Amino acid sequence: MDAFFQALCDAVGTQHVLTAPTDMAPYLSDWRGRYQGKARAVVRPGSTQELAGVVRACAADGVPIVAQGGNTGLCGGATPAEDGRAIVLSLERMNRIRAVDGDNNTITVEAGCTLAALQQAALDAGRLFPLSLASEGSCRVGGNLSTNAGGVQVLRYGNMRELTLGLEVVLADGRIWDGLRGLRKDNTGYDLKQLFIGAEGTLGIITAAVLKLFPAIGQRATAWLAVPDPAAAIRLLGLMRSLCGERITAFEIIGRSALDLVLRHIPGARAPLVGGADWSVLIELSDSAGTADLAAELEAALTQAMAQDLVDDAVIARSLAQAQALWSLRENISEAQRIEGISIKHDIAVPVSRIPEFLERAQTMLLEAWPDVRIVAFGHIGDGNLHYNLSKPEKLENEDFIARTPELNRKVHDLVAALGGSISAEHGLGQLKRDELVRYKSDVEMEMMRAVKHALDPAGLMNPGKVLGAVACAPSGLFRAEK
Amino acid sequence: MDAFFQALCDAVGTQHVLTAPTDMAPYLSDWRGRYQGKARAVVRPGSTQELAGVVRACAADGVPIVAQGGNTGLCGGATPAEDGRAIVLSLERMNRIRAVDGDNNTITVEAGCTLAALQQAALDAGRLFPLSLASEGSCRVGGNLSTNAGGVQVLRYGNMRELTLGLEVVLADGRIWDGLRGLRKDNTGYDLKQLFIGAEGTLGIITAAVLKLFPAIGQRATAWLAVPDPAAAIRLLGLMRSLCGERITAFEIIGRSALDLVLRHIPGARAPLVGGADWSVLIELSDSAGTADLAAELEAALTQAMAQDLVDDAVIARSLAQAQALWSLRENISEAQRIEGISIKHDIAVPVSRIPEFLERAQTMLLEAWPDVRIVAFGHIGDGNLHYNLSKPEKLENEDFIARTPELNRKVHDLVAALGGSISAEHGLGQLKRDELVRYKSDVEMEMMRAVKHALDPAGLMNPGKVLGAVACAPSGLFRAEK
Repeated sequence: MDAFFQALCDAVGTQHVLTAPTDMAPYLSDWRGRYQGKARAVVRPGSTQELAGVVRACAADGVPIVAQGGNTGLCGGATPAEDGRAIVLSLERMNRIRAVDGDNNTITVEAGCTLAALQQAALDAGRLFPLSLASEGSCRVGGNLSTNAGGVQVLRYGNMRELTLGLEVVLADGRIWDGLRGLRKDNTGYDLKQLFIGAEGTLGIITAAVLKLFPAIGQRATAWLAVPDPAAAIRLLGLMRSLCGERITAFEIIGRSALDLVLRHIPGARAPLVGGADWSVLIELSDSAGTADLAAELEAALTQAMAQDLVDDAVIARSLAQAQALWSLRENISEAQRIEGISIKHDIAVPVSRIPEFLERAQTMLLEAWPDVRIVAFGHIGDGNLHYNLSKPEKLENEDFIARTPELNRKVHDLVAALGGSISAEHGLGQLKRDELVRYKSDVEMEMMRAVKHALDPAGLMNPGKVLGAVACAPSGLFRAEK
Repeated sequence: MDAFFQALCDAVGTQHVLTAPTDMAPYLSDWRGRYQGKARAVVRPGSTQELAGVVRACAADGVPIVAQGGNTGLCGGATPAEDGRAIVLSLERMNRIRAVDGDNNTITVEAGCTLAALQQAALDAGRLFPLSLASEGSCRVGGNLSTNAGGVQVLRYGNMRELTLGLEVVLADGRIWDGLRGLRKDNTGYDLKQLFIGAEGTLGIITAAVLKLFPAIGQRATAWLAVPDPAAAIRLLGLMRSLCGERITAFEIIGRSALDLVLRHIPGARAPLVGGADWSVLIELSDSAGTADLAAELEAALTQAMAQDLVDDAVIARSLAQAQALWSLRENISEAQRIEGISIKHDIAVPVSRIPEFLERAQTMLLEAWPDVRIVAFGHIGDGNLHYNLSKPEKLENEDFIARTPELNRKVHDLVAALGGSISAEHGLGQLKRDELVRYKSDVEMEMMRAVKHALDPAGLMNPGKVLGAVACAPSGLFRAEK
């Protein structure tokens, strides 16, 4: 055994340094099966101290580190490169809830805790941790932080970034930064935790976090609405905000083709309204107080909306089962689309006000370029975030569809950029969108990011090839003006 | 005129380069009169392009730059050093509202816009911009951003950081970073705007921002409560949260000595409750919907709180005038304290759950050290943020009191640190707390901050001597592990 492996074994114990191909396999590809990498070893530390020992060993030998949580990412951010130089550092053993502080409304968790376990710990303490994602049973907090995860309740509670008060991070040289502060106000210098949130493990490895908790939900009201068009949906959002304020917890738009796929492929799925509108909205109100009558409040607000022609038809769930049935229509879109066949996915955001323009221009442009392509649009319209997917024309071969991916991506992303939007709203960059980034960010922004990367990871060993790609040289002096 | 001054005049026009002592005087001291600096000139650009020209001229000649907004800061962050090497760069001419996007709930403003003008622009658009501070008539958005300002509504809406979606920044080399995105979700690399928020002008100069707007307030309910002790106030906050959710907009604690000072010195101030409690709470609910009966909701919640012995007595404002009278008791504390005589101010935060322990231990410790010192404690208890001030014993000379400031600061700040708190919750560091910082931050955190500073301002010309003090040498290689 060489000295490097000995150092890894010394840090975490031999049984937690995996090198057999069958042991390593699950860690070397992403769950979509899109990326396949190689690694020297998969190392599974049980504590921050152990993890720091691993990083020190890697720093000493110049070995790249790919941190991995639940391995549920959509952009290949947690899959090592094919050159096999890196180790995969799995956080899955670091899954403890370290503390719950009810009066401070905070919870301190390790990065390897699953999102579902975190939600449950909050519930056990009579609180809500609001982040909610399709993969919550298996994704882990470190990944949620490193991708600044979003989901269906961002409208009310914010992204993972807004839910975070403090971090513990192992830096690129193996030192531990204890930033586990549970403070709502702290203006003592640069807010360093912000750098690591959303950095996909390229600046350091998040090992624990102090997160905000909220009052538990006492009551919900859920409705499915047929709306005339996306512009009406945006105006409806404004009206509902003025009438129901922050009780609006979710506001999702679903295009006809997305709903049709669910009705076709998901057993038991039933259309919530007769007639079938081109555009539907799923809205949910919630309140910590159990006493208010949210269903009545929602009904009154929708009556006003109908009078203003913002809603054509509506059904309000009268039971938890009915509410779940409405939500399952929304949540099964991706699964239905998978059954239907392959698709090209775009996770985009534009200002909420420009959603109608985006949808109209994108459709015109795509159907001009390819009359048979099927647009499946849905998403978190309240955040300006759409999953704008393109399903394969029925009679086309997969490879012919895939061959046109770059062209279609380019069209969609160029339009997003023209509207002041983002080509990755909530999934991150990973490997998938790393090279696209350079097209849409200004030179000065790329340079600032590289300067930050160089400042915190000068040897470039933290998840190399993700987010920024290789940072080969020191950007020293970039920010000096010419003399 | 030398070449440097010519370059300044070329950039902004001669009339906006002030050099006469009387013209420069207002820009060279802070409004508390605590710091007095010197400068080569005060330069007042009218646009981002002009400002960038000034920064390029300074970068070329190695001239430090102190950015200044409304000059209302409490820590000397906008006052130049005494060596007179720097220019003061005033943002006051850059005060335009660039855009309001109602459907996106965003406003784009220049950094020199006053907070009051921003609030008014939001109101004119039927929206709320929630940041609210004592100095809102004269403080400016750039300063609010650069100090990550807080205030009385953070509990519900967050600090300035949480209210910011995008920034435009002139970097240390004079290039302009256009990060004016109005997106709720954007995960395309490092969130660079976070670096400039709260950096007090030490990394670059914020010239404009895209900020969040909220539904206008339709209804408020305000009450003044006598509570048994701070621990009861914390439990009350938890109860009110579960009963009233996010309608709780403010939750302030006022110690008896603070209220007594207001009643003694402020004309027209009247005690809201008979008897006089050791601790009072000012609570406000608000809602965008005008239809709910918030006063009834508040009364019902307070009835429950009384049954649980969390509130001894309460008065709910029955008119806007009554609500304003209650608020003026809170808002006049600082003024009353100023009239009473000099005081030592601490702007501290601890986890909300540790507020009672902080108050008890601090009082015991201070009265042991100095039985005559008068503790005036009040603040944003819902954020864990207290203004923990010490008023001069009546018969003591000012200079004898001032002489003990370092000793008392040390005691209070050491206790704050022991409780996991912050020595600057919402005022920043500036010059005032720069040297204290080193005592309470870990070496690794100081080193990370210096690395970031060096990455973005390698020549150290951005507001030198603030936040971090002088950053003399490049931290290159600090994050490399020893071989």
